[in-house]
Amino acid sequence: MTLEMSMNDMGAAARAAARELALVTPDRKNGALWAMAEAISNDADIILNANTKDCDAVEGQTAAFMDRLRLDARRLQGIAESIVAVTNIPDPIGSVVASWDRPNGLRIEQVRVPIGVVGMIYESRPNVTADAAALCIKSGNAVILRPGSDSLRTARAMHAAIVKGLKKAQLPEACVSLVPVPEREAVGLMLGGLDGNIDVIIPRGGKSLVARVQKDARVPVFAHLDGICHVYVHEKADPAMAREVVINAKMRRTGVCGAAETLLIDRRFVDGAMLVKALIEAGCAVRGDASVMAMDSRVTKASEDDWSTEYLDAIISARVVDDVAGAIAHINGYGSHHTDAIITGDDAAAQKFMREVDSAIVVHNASTQFADGGEFGYGAEIGIATGRLHARGPVGAQQLTTIQNRVHGSGQVRPS
Amino acid sequence: MTLEMSMNDMGAAARAAARELALVTPDRKNGALWAMAEAISNDADIILNANTKDCDAVEGQTAAFMDRLRLDARRLQGIAESIVAVTNIPDPIGSVVASWDRPNGLRIEQVRVPIGVVGMIYESRPNVTADAAALCIKSGNAVILRPGSDSLRTARAMHAAIVKGLKKAQLPEACVSLVPVPEREAVGLMLGGLDGNIDVIIPRGGKSLVARVQKDARVPVFAHLDGICHVYVHEKADPAMAREVVINAKMRRTGVCGAAETLLIDRRFVDGAMLVKALIEAGCAVRGDASVMAMDSRVTKASEDDWSTEYLDAIISARVVDDVAGAIAHINGYGSHHTDAIITGDDAAAQKFMREVDSAIVVHNASTQFADGGEFGYGAEIGIATGRLHARGPVGAQQLTTIQNRVHGSGQVRPS
Repeated sequence: MTLEMSMNDMGAAARAAARELALVTPDRKNGALWAMAEAISNDADIILNANTKDCDAVEGQTAAFMDRLRLDARRLQGIAESIVAVTNIPDPIGSVVASWDRPNGLRIEQVRVPIGVVGMIYESRPNVTADAAALCIKSGNAVILRPGSDSLRTARAMHAAIVKGLKKAQLPEACVSLVPVPEREAVGLMLGGLDGNIDVIIPRGGKSLVARVQKDARVPVFAHLDGICHVYVHEKADPAMAREVVINAKMRRTGVCGAAETLLIDRRFVDGAMLVKALIEAGCAVRGDASVMAMDSRVTKASEDDWSTEYLDAIISARVVDDVAGAIAHINGYGSHHTDAIITGDDAAAQKFMREVDSAIVVHNASTQFADGGEFGYGAEIGIATGRLHARGPVGAQQLTTIQNRVHGSGQVRPS
Repeated sequence: MTLEMSMNDMGAAARAAARELALVTPDRKNGALWAMAEAISNDADIILNANTKDCDAVEGQTAAFMDRLRLDARRLQGIAESIVAVTNIPDPIGSVVASWDRPNGLRIEQVRVPIGVVGMIYESRPNVTADAAALCIKSGNAVILRPGSDSLRTARAMHAAIVKGLKKAQLPEACVSLVPVPEREAVGLMLGGLDGNIDVIIPRGGKSLVARVQKDARVPVFAHLDGICHVYVHEKADPAMAREVVINAKMRRTGVCGAAETLLIDRRFVDGAMLVKALIEAGCAVRGDASVMAMDSRVTKASEDDWSTEYLDAIISARVVDDVAGAIAHINGYGSHHTDAIITGDDAAAQKFMREVDSAIVVHNASTQFADGGEFGYGAEIGIATGRLHARGPVGAQQLTTIQNRVHGSGQVRPS
């Protein structure tokens, strides 16, 4: 059997499983999640052993890569706990999103239903296997998982535990499928939609993976390519709040997509030099325009490219803008429509900023690092989307649903 | 300037206009709609004259085609009135879809905002130019219109009137752009997204147009390819209601996507022969399985292909199914996920049908021909979508919006 044939069979099985899963009660789905978490805990030795083999086989990768790949008993327990956390979020399926009556007596309801089959393409993080499976089960979707080849042993061991949980809950095994081979051809087949049996693709990983998925996918994609996030410190910002938020937005974790990459300082904010000094003293390199360079001799000159660079590192670009309109123009021009924040005590300025900045997430007086499904209260997230359609921002269980229109009549016919 | 350059300029201008239109008040948008409708009425002679030239230039088309293309004073007045009707629907922009508080005091709001730029690719119906422009303006989106070459003179004249209305309301002309040339290359350029400046494509027209758009578009598409709609008459259907709904669903208008194409008769429904007789006497050819053939000698034999054929004509396929599960299996297997109805007095059967039929619209005790944005109360519709993502069912002003996540804080930073 060719890879294409076996992948298409996997797609057809996932579609059949999705039809069944769509009708399962919340309690049974939560029961499956508990059983999955338990099976992962029970199989901890097997999974950690597989992970050790994955780590031993890797050559020439960075320490950061190895840190993402490596599991230990504590991390694995955290993964199992994340699955349990998803049992606590509301079940989105079957809720009535809107309903109204028509003059002819028809009642129309829009009811939340699962999307169908999710295709997940990711790299080395072992937690994605469990998080994606948990959110898809919760939202009534089947999922086809395609982990990176470096973490394939770990993913296979974790998938085997997940399948034990599904069986224990008497759900079809094909609710969570894993592409068990490392061939890159499998990615291309998934991007083609497996004969109409994948409804949406979610890539998680580096920029080259996301760019390839966005370029080649023949089905819709929930993703973000860049997180060029801004913090704009307005004239009327509280200086202490501004310092704390800017440092957190940049430095809490520099490698996440919600990390700030550019600081915009209002020309009339009097404590700009204090912000720059605080960043530098926190270990951040600052690349500035002439005005920011004048604030601190340690600031180096920003090039035009800096304004559209996602450093994912302890580096920030910084410039002075004339006013809130100048900040908005900079962000809409150079940003990536991900997450942008304003720090101000002026509600009118905040409202203007939030209405006019064209990003998935806009923030007033808080850190951009809250761009996260867990922080939004979604239990977990399967990704963050900066596309305009369907899911915008963190993608949790609710964003993995769609609606069905249900029309209730009493014999109505349409007049000609 | 090449066509590609001028189309890309059109896209960039539409994006700039969309950013401005997104912030316009409901009153100003409604004012623009009134001005557009007035300008169309004022320019009626010009538009009708252009339409006459379009009709005179057509060769070798069907009477149905000519009927779709031809305008008269009454039809044009109807088009202007449809624009005014859109002023009466609620403005979707700025409404808070959901809001909640987090334990750390952050307040998260999801606010409805426009999608951005809509690309509309259609054929000969002159009303699409006005309907699409009106719904896009109402929902704060810019639109790029690409009419079929047969109706290009009509569309240009109508677009000129629409632009007068936009100018009078002091909105950017590029809120509604029209591709003024007949070259088919323009369609390909739009499907490529015009350098990131089209967010969604909506095709309206025949199956070959929709199929091409779905195959080649590099941006999301709201569309339906087929409307293979079913009416299932359950054992406990009221026979008179069943007859009236079946005749309306099939025969009110046979050429619309919500017209029924297949009748499913429950084995225990005792008046099947009455339904078949009523259809034949209403002028409908019936193609049946052996059981339906046994009901009336005028029924011809249905082939396997009939179950997946959209006749768009006075023809219906008909078969007997064992029960509601049999009806659901037939519909999910042969249908097109568009609109399907059950006629029954049994609420449990209706509920099972509506939950398990995997279609954009499911109907209990009413005609499938209610599958229409106007009948849903949307004022007008720009299309019907059978895809699973974002818009499912009739696409009105609200379906042309997305959400923005607004996070309101008081200095919160994310703990490490």
